[in-house]
Parts: sequence; structure tokens; C-alpha cells
Amino acid sequence: MSSQTFELTILGSSSASPTSERNQSAQLLNIAERFFLIDCGEATQIQLRKFKAKFQKIDHILISHLHGDHFFGLPGLLGSMHLLGRQQELNIYCPKELKVIIDSIHKISDTRLNYPIKWHFTNDDGLNLLFEDDKLEVYSFPLKHRIYCTGFLFKEKPYPRRIDKFLMDKFQVSTAFVNNLRVGKDVLNNEGVLIKNEEVTLAPPKARSYGYCSDTIYDESLIQYIKNVDLLYHESTFLEDKKDRAKATYHSTATQAAAIAKMANAKKLLLGHYSARYGHLEQFTTEAQTIFEKSVLSVEGETIKIGHAK
Amino acid sequence: MSSQTFELTILGSSSASPTSERNQSAQLLNIAERFFLIDCGEATQIQLRKFKAKFQKIDHILISHLHGDHFFGLPGLLGSMHLLGRQQELNIYCPKELKVIIDSIHKISDTRLNYPIKWHFTNDDGLNLLFEDDKLEVYSFPLKHRIYCTGFLFKEKPYPRRIDKFLMDKFQVSTAFVNNLRVGKDVLNNEGVLIKNEEVTLAPPKARSYGYCSDTIYDESLIQYIKNVDLLYHESTFLEDKKDRAKATYHSTATQAAAIAKMANAKKLLLGHYSARYGHLEQFTTEAQTIFEKSVLSVEGETIKIGHAK
Repeated sequence: MSSQTFELTILGSSSASPTSERNQSAQLLNIAERFFLIDCGEATQIQLRKFKAKFQKIDHILISHLHGDHFFGLPGLLGSMHLLGRQQELNIYCPKELKVIIDSIHKISDTRLNYPIKWHFTNDDGLNLLFEDDKLEVYSFPLKHRIYCTGFLFKEKPYPRRIDKFLMDKFQVSTAFVNNLRVGKDVLNNEGVLIKNEEVTLAPPKARSYGYCSDTIYDESLIQYIKNVDLLYHESTFLEDKKDRAKATYHSTATQAAAIAKMANAKKLLLGHYSARYGHLEQFTTEAQTIFEKSVLSVEGETIKIGHAK
Repeated sequence: MSSQTFELTILGSSSASPTSERNQSAQLLNIAERFFLIDCGEATQIQLRKFKAKFQKIDHILISHLHGDHFFGLPGLLGSMHLLGRQQELNIYCPKELKVIIDSIHKISDTRLNYPIKWHFTNDDGLNLLFEDDKLEVYSFPLKHRIYCTGFLFKEKPYPRRIDKFLMDKFQVSTAFVNNLRVGKDVLNNEGVLIKNEEVTLAPPKARSYGYCSDTIYDESLIQYIKNVDLLYHESTFLEDKKDRAKATYHSTATQAAAIAKMANAKKLLLGHYSARYGHLEQFTTEAQTIFEKSVLSVEGETIKIGHAK
């Protein structure tokens, strides 16, 4: 199996209040053509249109918590999916109170969606498997914020070892053993000789992972859930000048996000959830890179391709 | 009293679904520096920022009905008003179920606004006074749509007659009578002679009015509420090619909007609430102008100044 798509598109990067430049939290993650919408701030459907994302392909929406800047775009998106003819099931992973709100809104607006919503309620009891198929696994994990909040972890399943057909011929290994070889087993060749797996296969690409942490106070206890991720999104609502404000509001600074990325041994850090008070964002990377060099900004409309670690 | 501001800024012109070009229903009306937000589709707060409207000046929000494209922007706007320091009371005129939704959202997100909301629930029992001060009156009136819906009527109070000081001197009328003259009374001059009001005053500018009708099926019974308005906004979700669809969904075509404007003797017709199916909008004015010449399009970001009728 060759490498599959693993890329993240930023739809919103602002915190509590949008600005004329920045929208509220939302990201679109594509892993092997499974599309995950992560948080859904107001106007997310407009951002999806703007960046030409085919939003009917989204079968999974994950909502970290119920502050408005993370879900006020959901009712409108659900309505537009309906109006544009959606029929396939939509999975929503969220705190349980969200269903109550959405149900009330549909009731007062006399809306009946033409597609089923399958609700999956998150909990804050450690790492919880939300979704799994043959390609990947998705988990939630607890974050410390003013209200109940979870992060999300996306992990590719291990890739099979790559068969080297030339070497299989050379060592006279039957193609009947391909599946055993892919999962790393040693096999007997046509003459009954044990052939070590590494003699006829190549190491596969390393499985990749993405950790999403928004919103959270600086909290080292979340590191256990995001150890060694290829990409870590960690909110950075403030710069160091507002470190006290970050703590008081259960948010983080860019420096704190970088410290978490470093301790978690992440390959790359993605900053975001900027306070509307900051017009220019260069200082976020400047401060973060002092601690963790591979820190980059969330920029709306940009897509980050996540590569395989060496 | 000289003429005061009376202008309408279009914030959204799309119907059920936004497009990459058009936002959902919202208008900002300024009458004598009283600011009224009329409907509040998703991303209205973003549109207000984009068009540099000072949204803390809005003390009145009117919601016609509870289809999402008319109120999904409200929770976010209320939150941003709070975050930006609002303390003065906000009046919301709406169907009563909206308060239930807003209260639930504030409860689950643990939001306490720093300013009071004064709720005024509309009803569909004819013309109902919602607001009145020394400059104007605002009414709701029933519309026929799939769910409970009202239109809104904004009316300036009559202007006082204008004093002609030259003629007052000429006819020897004391300035003590100015207030009587302004309201149209005849007065006695310094020699006890009756002076007809028109001899020393000029006709005032005519009071202006704005009627807002969205969403509605073609319905001649609404004409009674909007007779002679200076500007009529009447939804035109469809063109004639979708006349049947308009009827089935309780919406109107541009031609029907024009027919209502003509029968109501409106001075000008503003079209809007366009279905997302229409990319170009010229045909809306083409069709409407066949019936009612002074038909114009709602264009987001544009401000329509409403002049005094001759």
C-alpha cells in the first residue's frame, strides 16, 4: 500500500470573536478521502464554499466544546447539507448538550433533514475511541478549559510492509505468502527454507497522526495523549504579554503551546485560535520558535500536507 | 426640523443557503441615528465588520421568523457585543421561541452577557406597535409563510411645519407662537389679526416609511400594512420560471413582488432573498420592472438613502 492523503485545511483561526480578517475555529482534515470537520465556528459553511471544499463529502463533524466560536456554524451547515440534497448519514461527535440545542432549533424552524444524524457523545474519561475503519482511528481526550472540552487524535493504522517482487523471486518465495509478508511474518520458501521477512520486504511508510488541542489552559497532563504526533495543533490565544490573561481564561500562549509540542515530541506545531486583539501574527511564531523551531501559523485557506516521519 | 438620516444598508441578500457571493438575510436601518438590525442570518456580524458598521450602536434587533437563514447569526452577534464591552440594553423583537433557544445556548456555553436583553415578542394579530419615540414608530404585521412570520413597518413621525422668519416679521407674528405654527395652527398677530398658518410657514418634508416583507407567499392582504411606503422590501426568492416552486414553498417571484409594490403604491421596490440557484441577478429587475419601474436589487454593502416624497 502506498501513502494516502493526509492533509489539513484551515477554515478559521480566530478565537471568541471573528475579525474582518479571520473566522472562528474550523478545520477540514482529509485522511485517505475520509473528511473530518473539526469544530464549526460561525460561517464555516461560507469558508468551505470559499475554499472550494466539497462539503457533502464530510461524513464526520467533531465539536470540541460548546463555546459559540466552536459550534455556531453547525446549524447552518446542517441546513445547507439538507438543501443541497444530502442523504447519507452524518456522524457528529460532541458534548451531549449539543443535540438538545440542534433538536430545539430544528423544532422551532420546522426543519426535517433528509439525512440521518448519528450522534456520538464524547466524555472526558481519558482516551476514547470515536471512530475506526481499515485506514485510521479517531480518539477524543480531555482538555482543561472553562467548560467541558475535549481534544481529538487522528491516527493512521500501521501501513503493511512493502513487498519486493525481485527479492521474492530471488529467494523463491511463493506469492501465496504475500499477506503474511505484509504483516511482517517470516515465511518458508519453495525449498522449505525459512526466509526472514526483512529479506524480501521493505519497511513501510510510518503511520501518521494529528493531535488537535483547542481550547486549553497550559496543561502537561495532555501530553500523554499526543506523544509523538506528526502534527500538533495547540491553541495559542495569546502572546506572552497576556500570560496572566491566558491563565485566567483557561487559554494558552504561543510559548506554552511550543513547550507542550516539545515535551510531546511532536514533529510540527500548528498555532491558532488567536485573540482578536492581535492584528499581525508574526510574533506568535517568533515566540513559539524560541522553544520549538517547527512552529507555524494557522492561515485560513492554507492546506498543510502531513508527511511520513523518516 | 430639517430632514434626518433614513438609510438602509444591505448585509445579506441570499435565501435559505448562502453562496460564495451572497450572505443570508440581514439589513441595517438607520433612522435619525436609531439603528435597527432587521433579521440576522449567519455571519451577519462578519458583514457588519466588513462594511464598517458600528454594531454597538444597534439597540434594536428585529427577527421576522425562525428559519435559520434569518437568525443563525444572532447568537454570535450577541456574544461579540458582550466581548466588545457592551453594557447598554438591547431590544430584540421576535417570535417568542427564539428566547428559549438563546437562553439554552447561553446556558450550555456558560455565557452571561454583561448587558440586558429586553425581549419583545411579536404576534400575528394585525399591525402591532413594537417601538415608538419622538422620531419614529415601528410596527410588525403578519406575513403568510410556512411558519409564523411577520413583516416590519418603520414610519417617521410627521415633521413640523417650517417657520419662515421673514414672513413672520412681515405679518407681525410674535415668536411666542412658533410652536403653534409648527404644528399647523393659525395664530393672531400683534394687531389681533388672524394669520393663516400657511401665510408664515412652509410645508415640512413628508415623513418617510419603510416596509419589510420577508418571507412571504404572494399575498394581497399584506398591502393594507404597507400602503404608500417610500421603500418596500419584498422578497423575490424566484423568477417567473419557478413560479410554482415559489407558491409551493410560500415564497414570491420578482414579478409578484412588483405587483404588490404597484398595488401598495410604494415609491420604490427593493428585491432580495434570492435563491442560490441564480448566479446573475439582472433578470430579477428585468421581470419586476415590467410591472413596477422603480424596482432595484439588494446588493450587499450598498446603502439606499430614502428621500422625501414630493
